[in-house]
Amino acid sequence: MEEQKPIGIGLMGMGVIGGQVAQVLTERAVQLADRIGRPIELRKIKIIESDFLRRQVQDMDQSLFTTSDEEFFNMPEIDIVIELIGGEHPAYEYIKRLLGSGKHVVTANKEVIAKHGAELRELARHHNVGLRYEASVGGGIPLIASFEHDLIANCIKGIYAIINGTTNYILSTMAKEGTEFSVALSQAQKLGYAEANPCNDIEGIDAAYKIAILATLAFRSHVHPDQVFCEGISRLSWKDFQYANEMGFVIKLLAIAKQEQNQIEVRVHPAFIPEDSFLANVDGVYNAVLVDGDLTGQVTFTGKGAGAQATSSAVAADVVAIARGIVNGQNVLVHLDDENKPIKPMTSVVTRFFMRMLIADQSGVLAQVAFTLGSRNISISSAIQKETMPDQMAEIVIMTHPASEESIQAAYADLTKLSVVKEVHNIIRVEA
Amino acid sequence: MEEQKPIGIGLMGMGVIGGQVAQVLTERAVQLADRIGRPIELRKIKIIESDFLRRQVQDMDQSLFTTSDEEFFNMPEIDIVIELIGGEHPAYEYIKRLLGSGKHVVTANKEVIAKHGAELRELARHHNVGLRYEASVGGGIPLIASFEHDLIANCIKGIYAIINGTTNYILSTMAKEGTEFSVALSQAQKLGYAEANPCNDIEGIDAAYKIAILATLAFRSHVHPDQVFCEGISRLSWKDFQYANEMGFVIKLLAIAKQEQNQIEVRVHPAFIPEDSFLANVDGVYNAVLVDGDLTGQVTFTGKGAGAQATSSAVAADVVAIARGIVNGQNVLVHLDDENKPIKPMTSVVTRFFMRMLIADQSGVLAQVAFTLGSRNISISSAIQKETMPDQMAEIVIMTHPASEESIQAAYADLTKLSVVKEVHNIIRVEA
Repeated sequence: MEEQKPIGIGLMGMGVIGGQVAQVLTERAVQLADRIGRPIELRKIKIIESDFLRRQVQDMDQSLFTTSDEEFFNMPEIDIVIELIGGEHPAYEYIKRLLGSGKHVVTANKEVIAKHGAELRELARHHNVGLRYEASVGGGIPLIASFEHDLIANCIKGIYAIINGTTNYILSTMAKEGTEFSVALSQAQKLGYAEANPCNDIEGIDAAYKIAILATLAFRSHVHPDQVFCEGISRLSWKDFQYANEMGFVIKLLAIAKQEQNQIEVRVHPAFIPEDSFLANVDGVYNAVLVDGDLTGQVTFTGKGAGAQATSSAVAADVVAIARGIVNGQNVLVHLDDENKPIKPMTSVVTRFFMRMLIADQSGVLAQVAFTLGSRNISISSAIQKETMPDQMAEIVIMTHPASEESIQAAYADLTKLSVVKEVHNIIRVEA
Repeated sequence: MEEQKPIGIGLMGMGVIGGQVAQVLTERAVQLADRIGRPIELRKIKIIESDFLRRQVQDMDQSLFTTSDEEFFNMPEIDIVIELIGGEHPAYEYIKRLLGSGKHVVTANKEVIAKHGAELRELARHHNVGLRYEASVGGGIPLIASFEHDLIANCIKGIYAIINGTTNYILSTMAKEGTEFSVALSQAQKLGYAEANPCNDIEGIDAAYKIAILATLAFRSHVHPDQVFCEGISRLSWKDFQYANEMGFVIKLLAIAKQEQNQIEVRVHPAFIPEDSFLANVDGVYNAVLVDGDLTGQVTFTGKGAGAQATSSAVAADVVAIARGIVNGQNVLVHLDDENKPIKPMTSVVTRFFMRMLIADQSGVLAQVAFTLGSRNISISSAIQKETMPDQMAEIVIMTHPASEESIQAAYADLTKLSVVKEVHNIIRVEA
């Protein structure tokens, strides 16, 4: 086998993940060559000037590195390029240029794939090269390949996922330690689970990218992240967790994608879920995905959703998949029909709701609240008046029966106009 | 696409699963053709005379069926054959003949793959055809493909699985309802979860086939079912469940495969596992597999491990995978190096043990038992004397510290010789 011409690999980006991937490709070269049927060779790593200060760069053969786009993009001895720069730009332009010049591409870039997947898959198909992105969702959990291959005979009814480790860690901490959001966040930042600028994670944007990618594969219809309703976790209070616990629920940031009558429903938001449900017991930085297929029934996956090692496992698997295709004289690109099924407007999405509000502690107030909700066709399944606060105020929590987003928004507006309602603290969707 | 020459499918076996697979291939022909890039066509179904009495046969176009081996094996218009006869013979001979004559084969036959996988993969490789068996383990859960592709860069450290739905249903029932084994078994038989002759399931043989297949893939070394230590569940009593529960454990039939210093440990037996562990919460007919990869860390999969629909999902996925290979002018057979790594002898396997025995209710007896265990280098982590029985007898349960299988067997022999030990009811391994 050693006499065979090796398959050339190029790598872009040498952060923590890039360093780990470079290590796996070099240290496991023999094992991977055996899996592929031909050796692979990491031939060039494109970095930026400041990367030379990084430990993982200084530890490697310096002749592997270049900061020159021209040099990197014009190496005929590179067959597959691994993009680990992250972010939309310039990664998107780089991937386009690579596919256009006939290079196979492996990427962990969820933002680029979520926003430009349809275009890039089309481009890859046109140039007959592979484009794989297993690492873009769920780290080392085999999700992309499962949708592309193993579940392919199914009509996927729904996907229910915890796919952002940062927020799941924060929510787990708030639930376990009764801390406020800000405290849990800074704790996550200290531990390196949250970035200095955590916006993408805590606002649910990262999860929206990921569910857009999964929904696109599962429903075979391009779902753009802009079409994903997205609500973050920053408004959650320890009190919401306390009440959830009393009611037998857990609060998780869920990414949900459903398909009904060829219409797609896709959303990311905090949700009450029953404490004995599968997703309720997924804590910390772990990710979990429940797929409901019409043939398989419910299939679940869990694992580390992030981290250099888990990500490198997925990246290496993609490299092997493409390399096997090269050995077999074909690429591994999967035929994707990008239909554009309609997205259900969020206003018509129906769930139960948990409401927590501060009201005047007087007789008849609860009746007024109930009447206001009723006039928007929202019926109450349970209402509990919690401890009385200073100045004749009382906190009540309400669990509604299923109601549309539209009616709950209208009811919220009505409630805020009621003189007896001091404040509506929070409204959280409930997923049974 | 309709003008393209369809890929011809042949089916052997028309039981419940065969009927479901035939239905999926025909009713979802358009969807599958779209995934493949070329139409597929179910062209012939090989059955035996008595199958004509089956509903699923009578409901279909009769010209699809044949009882003639000669006719079926000599149809050039069949490219892929799906074997769903089950059992070792004649399925094994059929698959050999098919591969030898250049047909691609998809099978759900765990016994044939577990016993003859190495030979059949070699035969398929030699004839450059595909051999796929996703449905042989875990029904609709993507396990085979995950080991073949997604986890391939990992060194798999261990697999811990509940892969027999029948026994898991029985154990769940015994735990939940406190029934004896025989009662739970007949209940499972009434519900169709257990066969009239349940031996293969309750003795752990079915699970041994499955873990042999997974271990072979995960460790890239052929593991024959004869090399799998196998102990069934028929000796378990409701009392064991009661004590397990008191001690914070659950009893499951586990299939375990580990790799340490290139030595493989593989076994199937009932085990105490902590009640808060992942596998402890998998009940009823569900299957669950925990894979510990050195890069991914722990990845888990759950889903329906059996049933016609879940199985048909896996079979159809295999058909699509092979058909895509045909369209691309290559087969999807994965290069497998069948090393033969040494199998660790069961006698040197080390676990903790739960022991339940009946002893004479006299002072000093526990000391004698402890001494006997100690003389075999088995130390006791906890011992509880349970309720006194008639005739001055008492039941005690002991939890040991880690000890080798060899020493526990020797200790068992010693204990049975002690006059004060009336009976050693059960010894159950403990997996932390």
